Amino acid sequence: MQRWRRHLCLFLCIHLLVYLNEQEVEQIGSDASPAERVQRAMNCLPLTLEKSVDDSNSSSFRRWTIADYSRAYSSGEITPRKVAEQFINAVHESSRAALPMSFFINYDAEDILKQATESTLRYERGDPISALDGVPIAIKDEIDCSPYPTTGGTKWLHKVRPCTGDACCVMRLRSCGAIIVGKTNMHELGAGTSGINPHYGTTRNPYHPNKIAGGSSSGSAAVVSAGLCPAALGVDGGGSVRMPASLCGVIGFKPTFGRIPHTGVLPLNWTVGMVGILAGTLEDALIVYAAISGQLPSHEPTILPPKLLFPLLNSTNPISEIKFARYGEWFNDCSDEIRICCSNALHLLCEHYKWKTVEVTIPEIESMRLAHYLTIGSECTTSLSSALEKLDFAELGWDARVALRVYGAFNSKEYIKAQKMRNRQMQIHKNIFAKADVIVAPTTGVTAYSIFDDALKTGELDYINGAALVRYQISGNFLGLPAVTVPVGYDKEGLPIGLQFIGKPWSEPTLMHIAFAMQALCISHYRKPKVFCNLLHKN
Amino acid sequence: MQRWRRHLCLFLCIHLLVYLNEQEVEQIGSDASPAERVQRAMNCLPLTLEKSVDDSNSSSFRRWTIADYSRAYSSGEITPRKVAEQFINAVHESSRAALPMSFFINYDAEDILKQATESTLRYERGDPISALDGVPIAIKDEIDCSPYPTTGGTKWLHKVRPCTGDACCVMRLRSCGAIIVGKTNMHELGAGTSGINPHYGTTRNPYHPNKIAGGSSSGSAAVVSAGLCPAALGVDGGGSVRMPASLCGVIGFKPTFGRIPHTGVLPLNWTVGMVGILAGTLEDALIVYAAISGQLPSHEPTILPPKLLFPLLNSTNPISEIKFARYGEWFNDCSDEIRICCSNALHLLCEHYKWKTVEVTIPEIESMRLAHYLTIGSECTTSLSSALEKLDFAELGWDARVALRVYGAFNSKEYIKAQKMRNRQMQIHKNIFAKADVIVAPTTGVTAYSIFDDALKTGELDYINGAALVRYQISGNFLGLPAVTVPVGYDKEGLPIGLQFIGKPWSEPTLMHIAFAMQALCISHYRKPKVFCNLLHKN
Repeated sequence: MQRWRRHLCLFLCIHLLVYLNEQEVEQIGSDASPAERVQRAMNCLPLTLEKSVDDSNSSSFRRWTIADYSRAYSSGEITPRKVAEQFINAVHESSRAALPMSFFINYDAEDILKQATESTLRYERGDPISALDGVPIAIKDEIDCSPYPTTGGTKWLHKVRPCTGDACCVMRLRSCGAIIVGKTNMHELGAGTSGINPHYGTTRNPYHPNKIAGGSSSGSAAVVSAGLCPAALGVDGGGSVRMPASLCGVIGFKPTFGRIPHTGVLPLNWTVGMVGILAGTLEDALIVYAAISGQLPSHEPTILPPKLLFPLLNSTNPISEIKFARYGEWFNDCSDEIRICCSNALHLLCEHYKWKTVEVTIPEIESMRLAHYLTIGSECTTSLSSALEKLDFAELGWDARVALRVYGAFNSKEYIKAQKMRNRQMQIHKNIFAKADVIVAPTTGVTAYSIFDDALKTGELDYINGAALVRYQISGNFLGLPAVTVPVGYDKEGLPIGLQFIGKPWSEPTLMHIAFAMQALCISHYRKPKVFCNLLHKN
Repeated sequence: MQRWRRHLCLFLCIHLLVYLNEQEVEQIGSDASPAERVQRAMNCLPLTLEKSVDDSNSSSFRRWTIADYSRAYSSGEITPRKVAEQFINAVHESSRAALPMSFFINYDAEDILKQATESTLRYERGDPISALDGVPIAIKDEIDCSPYPTTGGTKWLHKVRPCTGDACCVMRLRSCGAIIVGKTNMHELGAGTSGINPHYGTTRNPYHPNKIAGGSSSGSAAVVSAGLCPAALGVDGGGSVRMPASLCGVIGFKPTFGRIPHTGVLPLNWTVGMVGILAGTLEDALIVYAAISGQLPSHEPTILPPKLLFPLLNSTNPISEIKFARYGEWFNDCSDEIRICCSNALHLLCEHYKWKTVEVTIPEIESMRLAHYLTIGSECTTSLSSALEKLDFAELGWDARVALRVYGAFNSKEYIKAQKMRNRQMQIHKNIFAKADVIVAPTTGVTAYSIFDDALKTGELDYINGAALVRYQISGNFLGLPAVTVPVGYDKEGLPIGLQFIGKPWSEPTLMHIAFAMQALCISHYRKPKVFCNLLHKN
C-alpha cells in the first residue's frame, strides 16, 4: 500500500510526534467525543473553590467557573434560560453605557435564547450533555459560527466570503451543549494589537474603560474579564490571544501548532496562526481545550499524538523538578512595574516549589519578529488576494490600509529568507529546551494604554506600544510553541499584568502544571474589574 | 528525551517513509560503506554482455561499462594509469578539434594521473577497493570537488564562493576508488537547457557536433556519450540531468528527492534540485546510485528508509504486473519522430512483458511548470543574493542576465501560491499513482537542435525549444518524484530519443526494473556517436 506524507504546502511548525516524559498526566484517547473529553478533563481538575463571587466580606475576587455554572444548573439554583436572559441584558446595557464596551460584532438574542431553552430542557430531563451544557461561550469573529457572518472585524470580508457553517472548534463546543453567545469584536483583520476598531467600535478594558482591551482578540478577552462568559475562543497569529488576555487579567492559552483543527477559521495566516482559548481560570481553559483539541479524523496521516495528554491538576504532589529559562535582557525589556511584578511572581513560584531558573540568551529576537511579520503579512495578502483586487481601500481603517500595503510589498526572496531564519530559530530554541523545561517572560511590555478619541474613528498606528505588546509573543507563533499567560498582578492604575510560560512542542501538560501552580499563588489577590456582571446572580 | 521533527525551512518534497511492495529487491543497509554497497549492487546486476565495443562485424554498439573496466583491470589487460593517459589525450584532442567539444570546465592531468597511479598500485597488490576502483567518473561543475573551483558555469561565482572540499557524493565515489577526472561543462548557473556557455565554450553533442548536448548538465551527458566515462554526476533542478542524457543517448537517473545528500552542491535551488546520475547503461547508473545514495548519518531524524531497496536485475522472472499511466495529449505534444519512436517503444515493452497502459489526465501541467519556474527562480536569487549584490552583470551571458532579472522579480504572494499549487499537484499525482505504477512520457519534445555561431559568443534564449525540452521534466523536480530516461531510438538525423519513466516516491526498484526491461529491448540497436573514444583500447 502506497502512503504519502501529507505535504506541507508552506513551512509549518509541525513537531515530531513524541510522548514527553510528563508527570501526572491522564491520557484521553482521540476517539473520545468532545463531551467525553470534557468529562475526563473535569475529573483531572481540582475542586473549584466554593467561595462565591459576591462574597463582599472578602477583598479577593473570582469569576464564576464552568464548574459553578454546571453545579448551579444541576442543583436547579438557576437555569441556562435565566442566565441567557441576564447575558442579553448585560450586553445590551454595556453597549448603552457612556463608554460603550463594544464586546460583540454580532449576537442574536433569539438564537441565544433558543440554545438556552434546549439546554434548560436537558437539565430538566436530568441529562445535560457535559459540564459545558448551558455555559455561555463567545467566539472571535475570525471563526465561522452560524448564524453569523464572519467579518474578521471588517466591513467587507463577509460579503466576499460568506460563512457557510460552524468551524470545527465551534461544532465541538456545541456538541458539548455550550451556548454560543455571539461573535466577539476584534482588530480589523487581526492586523493590530490594540483592538481599536473604527467599524464596530473599540472594545474597552473592563478594568478601565478608557484603556484598550488589547488585540486582536479584544472582545473575547473582555467578555471573559467582564464575567459574561467563563471562556471564549480567539485566534493567535502573533500573540492575538495572549496579549488581550494579559491586558484584561484573564488566562490566555495557545496550544502547540496543530493541536486544534483550523477548519472554518479565516485564512488570514496559514503557518503562524491558530485558535486559542481565553478563560477566567486555568481550569476552564483546560476544559475548553479538552473539548476542541484533537485532529480531525479525516486528516491523514495524523500530525497529532493519538492521545491528548492531560494534566492532573488535583495531583497532590507537584512536579518535582522544573527549570525555567530566563533571558534577563529580554525579560526586563518592559515597564518597571511589569518587570518587578513578573520577577516577584517568578521568584515566589521558584521559592514555593523549589524550582530553578537558568539564565539563557535568545539571539536574534528582533530579526525573528521581522521575519514573522514578513511571513504573516505575505500569507495574509496571499489568502485575501482575490478579495483585495475588488476592495475599495476606503472601506478599511487607516491602520489596516497601511498594514495591507506593507503586507503586499514583500518579494519572494525576503519570504524565503524569513523561512530560513525560522529554521535557525527552531535550532536555537531546541538548544534552550535542552537546558530548561519552559521559557518564562512577561506577556507584554506595557499594560493597557489609553484610547484616544480620534483613534476611535479612524483606527490607530501606535508602533511604540505595539512593539511593546508583541515583544514576547513571536516564538509561540513563528515556531508553533505552546504558550500560556497567567495574571500575576496589577500596575498602580489597577491594570492587569500577565506572566507568560512558553513550552516545548506538545508539552501542554507540563506547561499547564506550571501555570496552575502560578495561578494558585496569585488567585487570592485577583481584583474585580470596574465593568463586571454576575450572570449567576439570582436577583 | 525530547526530539523534534527536522524543520522544513521551505517546502520539501519529502515523502512518507514507506516500504513499497517491491518485487525482486535486495536490501542494502545504510550502515554499509559505499564500497560495500557497490559490491552488493554488482551482485544484483545481470552479467554484462561480453561483446566488445570494437566488434565491427556487428551493426550494434555498446559503451564500456564499469564491469568492463573492473574486469580489464583485474585481468591486467590494461591499467588505470594507461586509461587515465588515454583519457587525458582524448580530452586534449577533443578540445583541439575543428568543432571543440568543450566537455570540461576544469580537469587537471596531474591530479588524474596521481589517482590512476594509486589505483594501479591497488590492482597490482590485488586489492582494488571496489568495482569502481580506477573507473573514470566526471563531476558537473555545480558540485564541489577538490582540487577544482566550483564555477557553476560562471566566470564569477567561484570567486565569491571558494570550494573547500569534496561534496558528500564525490567523497563517496573516491572512497570506492573511482578516478575523479574533472569538472564538466554546464549551462551558466544551470539557468538554461541548451548547454550553450559563452564563457567556457558550448558542449557539443557527440552524435552530431553541430547540435547542442542539452543542459544544464551538458558536459556530464556528453562525456558519457563519447565514451570518456562510463558514468558522471549531474544536478537536476528542472530536468538538467534527464534532458542532456536523452539528447546525448545515455541513461539519466534522478532518484527520489532526498535520496542523495545535497551537501557540497551549489545552492542554486533548495527544494527542487538534487544530484542525478548519467551513465552509458542502466547497470552503471545503479552502481553509482548504490555508491552515492543514502542519508548522511548526521542528519536527524533520518528522512530516508534505513535500507536502500535495490532491484535484482538478473532476476529471471520480470515483474508480473506493471501499469503505465499515459496522458495522451501530453505524451504526443512533441515532434512526430519522437512521438512515433516513444509510442513504438512503449508498445514493444507492453507487448513483450504483457504490461498495461492506462490513459490518465494530468491537469494544470503548464501551471505547474510556471510554479516550478517561480520557485526555482526565487530560491536561486535568494541563495545568490549576497553574491549578486556585488556582481557586474556584464560578467553574465545574455540569457543568464535575463534569467536573473526575472528570477528576482517575483513577490512573496506568487511564491506562496506556487507552493500551494505544488501541494495540489502532489494530490493529483497521488491519485494517478493509485491507478498506475509509473507515469510514462517522452523525455523531451525535440531532439538536439542546431548551435548557431552568434549564440556561442553571447549565450542564447530559445524559449520555443526550451519549452519543448523541459515539457516532461517538472513533476520529477517540483514533486520530488524519481525519474529515469532510457535511449529508445534516433531521429532521421541520427539524434538520440529518450523515453522517460516517472515513479512513485521511493519506488526506485520498480522504476529500475521497468527501465532495465526497456533498455534490454533497445540496447542492440544503439548507435555509435560521431565523437567517440575507446579508453580500453589496447593499441
